[in-house]
Amino acid sequence: MAQVYYRMGIHEQQAQFDHFFRSYPDYGVHHAGYCINAGLEWFINWLSGVEIQKHELDYLREQKGRTGVRLFQDDFLDWLSRNFHFDNLSISAIPEGRVVHPNVPLTVVTGSLAIAQILETSLLNHLNFQTLIATKASRIKEAGRGNMVMEFGMRRAQYTGGNAGARAALIGGVDFTSNTGMSYLLGYPPKGTHAHSMVQAFMAMGGTELDAFRAYAEVFPDECLLLIDTINTLESGLPNAIKVFDELRRKGHEPIGVRLDSGDLAYLSVRVARILNEAGYPNAKIILSNELDELVLWQIITQIQEEAPEVGLLADEVINRLIYGVGTRLITSHGDSALDGVYKLVAIQKDGQWKPALKISENPAKIPNPGQKKVWRVYDKRDKAHADLISLQDEDPRGLDTVTLHHPTEYQVFHKLDSEKISHCEPLLEEVMKDGKMLYTPCSIEEIRARREADLEHLDLGVKRILNPHIYHVSLTPRLFQLKQDLIKRWDKS
Amino acid sequence: MAQVYYRMGIHEQQAQFDHFFRSYPDYGVHHAGYCINAGLEWFINWLSGVEIQKHELDYLREQKGRTGVRLFQDDFLDWLSRNFHFDNLSISAIPEGRVVHPNVPLTVVTGSLAIAQILETSLLNHLNFQTLIATKASRIKEAGRGNMVMEFGMRRAQYTGGNAGARAALIGGVDFTSNTGMSYLLGYPPKGTHAHSMVQAFMAMGGTELDAFRAYAEVFPDECLLLIDTINTLESGLPNAIKVFDELRRKGHEPIGVRLDSGDLAYLSVRVARILNEAGYPNAKIILSNELDELVLWQIITQIQEEAPEVGLLADEVINRLIYGVGTRLITSHGDSALDGVYKLVAIQKDGQWKPALKISENPAKIPNPGQKKVWRVYDKRDKAHADLISLQDEDPRGLDTVTLHHPTEYQVFHKLDSEKISHCEPLLEEVMKDGKMLYTPCSIEEIRARREADLEHLDLGVKRILNPHIYHVSLTPRLFQLKQDLIKRWDKS
Repeated sequence: MAQVYYRMGIHEQQAQFDHFFRSYPDYGVHHAGYCINAGLEWFINWLSGVEIQKHELDYLREQKGRTGVRLFQDDFLDWLSRNFHFDNLSISAIPEGRVVHPNVPLTVVTGSLAIAQILETSLLNHLNFQTLIATKASRIKEAGRGNMVMEFGMRRAQYTGGNAGARAALIGGVDFTSNTGMSYLLGYPPKGTHAHSMVQAFMAMGGTELDAFRAYAEVFPDECLLLIDTINTLESGLPNAIKVFDELRRKGHEPIGVRLDSGDLAYLSVRVARILNEAGYPNAKIILSNELDELVLWQIITQIQEEAPEVGLLADEVINRLIYGVGTRLITSHGDSALDGVYKLVAIQKDGQWKPALKISENPAKIPNPGQKKVWRVYDKRDKAHADLISLQDEDPRGLDTVTLHHPTEYQVFHKLDSEKISHCEPLLEEVMKDGKMLYTPCSIEEIRARREADLEHLDLGVKRILNPHIYHVSLTPRLFQLKQDLIKRWDKS
Repeated sequence: MAQVYYRMGIHEQQAQFDHFFRSYPDYGVHHAGYCINAGLEWFINWLSGVEIQKHELDYLREQKGRTGVRLFQDDFLDWLSRNFHFDNLSISAIPEGRVVHPNVPLTVVTGSLAIAQILETSLLNHLNFQTLIATKASRIKEAGRGNMVMEFGMRRAQYTGGNAGARAALIGGVDFTSNTGMSYLLGYPPKGTHAHSMVQAFMAMGGTELDAFRAYAEVFPDECLLLIDTINTLESGLPNAIKVFDELRRKGHEPIGVRLDSGDLAYLSVRVARILNEAGYPNAKIILSNELDELVLWQIITQIQEEAPEVGLLADEVINRLIYGVGTRLITSHGDSALDGVYKLVAIQKDGQWKPALKISENPAKIPNPGQKKVWRVYDKRDKAHADLISLQDEDPRGLDTVTLHHPTEYQVFHKLDSEKISHCEPLLEEVMKDGKMLYTPCSIEEIRARREADLEHLDLGVKRILNPHIYHVSLTPRLFQLKQDLIKRWDKS
């Protein structure tokens, strides 16, 4: 495509592409009601470092079609090698960690048609996946009532994609990852536990589970966290763990707790909690793992609420001591393993004038919003996010007496909001790069997490619900709605 | 765990770990009946290049527990820095491209307990994902009746995991990838098509779809493949494409064909085929894309079989000209986005003797096969794979009058096979590394693909079926079965 643009002389025409997703992840029986934006910094880093190498140009040079004719000519490749830089590129984006919704431009790229087009795959690759995983992590963190969550997914991840996933999981609310490399990079302490094989190794050499536990406690007296389901959780693992905990305490150390990785985790949590209490360890944590996700956490918590009172425990006391180790189902976004983010041409310059570009679809909801736009979040008087509003570039809802929120596709459906019902309208897009100059300031994962937490505070509970969340409205200004309809009509006549 | 082993003085004990998966990918309404082994070469490459850097040791050195005590002591870290190499490591593995089945050791690692344990995450990360994607690709290739398949998934992949996925897709039967970097690395020509945005760009600047098509044809006269659904497939895209094809032909060029990316792909394929025929392009290809996977291909082909005769076409003529562009659903293994591959301790040396190690589970099918083993594929007289047989290290079914195939968990279930019914027994594991010496010879993707094709020839049709495939048997020799049962009994008494 770049060579076609080059040959037609339109390769340096200024063009604008919007990146957005069309629908929330749908995990099958449940779906998300919001997403957590993530991945921008890694895309920016890629952009700052990427260049075309000579061997890459040579590879393109040697590509031939069916008839043996070269696919890419020298003049085009020369232009590409001289122009594969971002001196004219401008990017604005919604910051990482923000709550985001379908059809809202999350990243807006303006630059020469050929170069902006070439960025598509890398941009989508960086942003789609991290947003997908940050969203899943946020749901899991919410389902776990804010308890500590650890990310364990590297062994089931897509190769080094597991690194991007670990970062996104931290953004989305996970507290630690067992991915030591990413912990190092992001300034986190890595966290993990021992595996069954440690107990197996001692047993295969003629020892016992107790020997294995004692060895671990000796090496990590203040970090003692024992996996108790290698033989039998209640009959072997737990009594052995308590024996070791007692020995530790006599030496002045407090254990962390136990981990359960199989069986009925809710049933076992209640029993293990009671036995730990009776043994004098009411503060020992119970770490759960084994194919956990938001739905499984919900089920476990519900079951504990029913079963804890039966054995004389307060459900909340059991639930509050749980920690969740989440692997496969987080790192692959179980149930929906791809976000449908796209990168669409929305405007192009001709004779110095911006022309909106349209992409028609039989499904009106799939027609992207054309032209250069702004994105606003409208907050009500409770300071809850009421809707996201997409406007034309020259519109500003701030200071208007009435803000009109138009349905994105239905002619007669709109909703007028008096200014007295609005607390404020917040512009969401921020400049990241301006005419090739980097304006982006790297920020810590902590800052990004704080954004997520603040945004979740501003979301109605119904939108955060795991099952059948309320639909959050993404609306257009009347002028943007009209522009889109006019273009569709013009298109139909073409 | 490595530090615990170090402190107990068992870190250099020789240990064996088996890598295997427990169940075929289950995509929901359908599941796989075989897998395609993949990822080994990349794991080997990682192993050959990995080393611990000083800053990594420093990072471990500064890790502290809750009480401020350092987690890793200097003597252990010194040992680790001196011993994080693979001089004593031996690996045997089933080659990439081979058809593989659950519970069969695919990769067997023997080395010092601490070092072999440390490899777990990397090994699983490299092998689980590529095997998952090679399997999905193989199913898609089979469902597409062997027609050309192109991989388009990078934009929805897990960051650079998309590279591993593209390689695995090629191993599994995909013919080309639009991932230019991986094509370069693997010696393939990259293949792709133009996007809607090319048509949009011309239109936004006042041109037409026909202008866009003509520009493309001018630049790529011998590779002309036009995306015809930007406006309306049958009313605009196809007539415009035929106009351009006619112009090309007058200049002596033959077009490749058209791509459909939306709508009812089966219905449209039939109509487009007929119109292309009538226009004199019976050999023009029809490339389909848009959330394709094996089930969708099956549906499309079935529908064409019904609809083609209605418009006077032979169904096979339509089907044989189809090419499939497969993205998201291949690169994420839609429906089951992780293979449940594990890495389990199965034996450990004590006093120079190998001791089998067991891991108990309430579910007998989840108890790994203990000890040092061999893997055999038993072929019947039709030269079809009859079963995989796992034996003890010193067993060899070749030359036996009768081979007994024992059910992996059920006492009374076994099956005796007379040698006259057996064509041959093939050992599947090959030595890859022996006492630190690399025996692995890199091989081309073509060689790996040839292995896959040969193995698929040896599979009964029922095992390859997309829906409800026949269960392929993975059996134990009676001696291995007995060893496992004896260990379980001994374990229960412990």
